Amino acid sequence: MTTVVESQPSGVENTRERLPSCALALFAEFSFEGTSLQMIADALGVTKAAVYHHFKTREDILLAVVRPFLADLAQVVARAEAARGRRPQIECMLGGFVDLAVHNRAMVSMITSDAGVTRALHGRGEYLALINRSLALITGPAPTPEILVAATMALVGIANTVTAEPVAALPEPQLRLHLLDAARRALGLRRRPDTGP
Amino acid sequence: MTTVVESQPSGVENTRERLPSCALALFAEFSFEGTSLQMIADALGVTKAAVYHHFKTREDILLAVVRPFLADLAQVVARAEAARGRRPQIECMLGGFVDLAVHNRAMVSMITSDAGVTRALHGRGEYLALINRSLALITGPAPTPEILVAATMALVGIANTVTAEPVAALPEPQLRLHLLDAARRALGLRRRPDTGP
Repeated sequence: MTTVVESQPSGVENTRERLPSCALALFAEFSFEGTSLQMIADALGVTKAAVYHHFKTREDILLAVVRPFLADLAQVVARAEAARGRRPQIECMLGGFVDLAVHNRAMVSMITSDAGVTRALHGRGEYLALINRSLALITGPAPTPEILVAATMALVGIANTVTAEPVAALPEPQLRLHLLDAARRALGLRRRPDTGP
Repeated sequence: MTTVVESQPSGVENTRERLPSCALALFAEFSFEGTSLQMIADALGVTKAAVYHHFKTREDILLAVVRPFLADLAQVVARAEAARGRRPQIECMLGGFVDLAVHNRAMVSMITSDAGVTRALHGRGEYLALINRSLALITGPAPTPEILVAATMALVGIANTVTAEPVAALPEPQLRLHLLDAARRALGLRRRPDTGP
């Protein structure tokens, strides 16, 4: 009996727990603006009222979907900011961001590329601040336009390459390695930091 | 009177002509899946029936929106394929793609990043073939995973950097130059081809 309860927990809590990953899959397929509360309810096999019981708006659902990821990104940013020296900061930020992108492909692609998501999140100051801190870790203070373009290309390039065919099919360690190398090259950095030839 | 007629041509033809740019603006703001025929009709100030008179489905509208751009991309690809030598082919493809991206920012961002657009276009063989030819021009035949990742990052990086703040605000010639340099670096190419030191 315990097994049945665990694999199919019933009622209110189950809906709340299953909702974010289900909503993310729909956002990734139909975009945030293209996904209604009804579509989410249908995918969960519950009524719209049951969804509404937990989340009053689609924006509330989006925040529930992105919150764990943004918390992970905030950790990466904080760790990178705590590193001593510019190159270790850049490596820490790039490496952390590549890991996040490889392990949360639908999420990273959605956050950087879905216009509706961008609009909904940009209304929230803490998200913008996090993005600006990520970028500043790569560019350093008072960047030239050249560095700004390269850093932006590195970050949005990483975010949107992980979901692009046929790259998406590469084994994870290989994808991770090549993403890091391409991003370092875009930034004009040498391949292996802090190691011999 | 002629002026009035030209600036506000009436009726059926006007709707058909104004529709693509109006639809693109809505797709960019609300995503393809998030934009209804009714929203397009409202933005044009016409009835849904008037839109329906020209386009039976949203997919028909999307094709009308992207067709001129895909024709331009096809020209870039054909010119690059006709270039003699790998480096000139790469330069021709990169330069042409950067120009397209800088001059059609909402379009390029939408085509490379809107999940609904990608899904709608991927059902059409000629679009996929064009994307594959663009990528193959950068990678060359039988690319290693490393080159595949770098080439993908260069193209999706260019496409999504042109709409990213604060890069989007840079003057066009500067943006173009830095995009090209960052893409070349990502690909491991030297800065200025075919010129002296």
